[in-house]
Amino acid sequence: MRISARNVLKGTVVEVTKGQTTAHIRIDVGGTIVTSSITNEAVDDLKLKVGMQAAAVIKASDVMIAVE
Amino acid sequence: MRISARNVLKGTVVEVTKGQTTAHIRIDVGGTIVTSSITNEAVDDLKLKVGMQAAAVIKASDVMIAVE
Amino acid sequence: MRISARNVLKGTVVEVTKGQTTAHIRIDVGGTIVTSSITNEAVDDLKLKVGMQAAAVIKASDVMIAVE
Amino acid sequence: MRISARNVLKGTVVEVTKGQTTAHIRIDVGGTIVTSSITNEAVDDLKLKVGMQAAAVIKASDVMIAVE
Amino acid sequence: MRISARNVLKGTVVEVTKGQTTAHIRIDVGGTIVTSSITNEAVDDLKLKVGMQAAAVIKASDVMIAVE
Amino acid sequence: MRISARNVLKGTVVEVTKGQTTAHIRIDVGGTIVTSSITNEAVDDLKLKVGMQAAAVIKASDVMIAVE
Repeated sequence: MRISARNVLKGTVVEVTKGQTTAHIRIDVGGTIVTSSITNEAVDDLKLKVGMQAAAVIKASDVMIAVE
Repeated sequence: MRISARNVLKGTVVEVTKGQTTAHIRIDVGGTIVTSSITNEAVDDLKLKVGMQAAAVIKASDVMIAVE
Repeated sequence: MRISARNVLKGTVVEVTKGQTTAHIRIDVGGTIVTSSITNEAVDDLKLKVGMQAAAVIKASDVMIAVE
Repeated sequence: MRISARNVLKGTVVEVTKGQTTAHIRIDVGGTIVTSSITNEAVDDLKLKVGMQAAAVIKASDVMIAVE
Repeated sequence: MRISARNVLKGTVVEVTKGQTTAHIRIDVGGTIVTSSITNEAVDDLKLKVGMQAAAVIKASDVMIAVE
Repeated sequence: MRISARNVLKGTVVEVTKGQTTAHIRIDVGGTIVTSSITNEAVDDLKLKVGMQAAAVIKASDVMIAVE
């Protein structure tokens, strides 16, 4: 599957924390940690575990820009 | 200003393309290119130009995870 | 690629309209039309054309519920 | 109330699962299941229950496109 | 129609700017200006014009918090 | 830090409710209550407490328009 989302940042899963319905996943993308909030169900479906190769996928319209 | 968004990825602006109302910005974050879609008005307001230091800011709930 | 987004609605592309930076795509999902707004660049990258099989992908946290 | 969101997919609520702050709702839209993540408070406010008529409402800019 | 989105901020339309596919709308909510980016098609569909009563609708998961 | 998000609504925190992974924050913006859903981690990081000055930050592309 190829997707229209412009940002597919490849890395390694370094944390999986499940809440009651929502989980937080952290991916190490070349030394930068990216944090994601997804459903517990998606975690189970993708069998996400620490150490797995995975990508953070982000639609361009969800990316803001900040300057100092 | 500090923000609740969990992802603040620092880098350098490498492209600024304005459309009629919407602009596309690309930031090089340690070798990874992140694409953002924001209003032209924000581009003017932040005076975004190629070569500037800037950060891509992304709320954790806007980050999906993909696996092969 | 498998993705954490809970909604992958398969259908057929019925409209591709490009603006200056942003494009609108319509997909017929079993008789229901789903409208998407993505970058022109994604349209070119995926070579989206009327008649193609494609899916509308939506993160669960981007779906609201309405009642009469 | 009429809304700018381009996608208002009418169906029937088939699942309501509340977590501590976030709930997951599933709607059957003509045989396709759409999953939504909303606040518990919204579930209470709309009195969402299995069997109710409801619509999944999605802004066009939150819809991505995927192809095989 | 009642919606799960927790934020329905009532005000008056003070600006409507259409681009090629995307429009920017400004609403005065009790003296605070709220800016929205929606499809041109939605502008036409809702017949949005300066001076109209309208509401800015925002899902709670799209609201970040910032502090000084 | 200045951000591309067009909506930075200043107010006072009136409620902080933490779930297992996701928290709900309410800000009083000139008499209008704005509800936000963020990670517990962000609440801790920003040390959000009732009575603090804070702003609700919203990207223009996440704002919909509704009319009666």
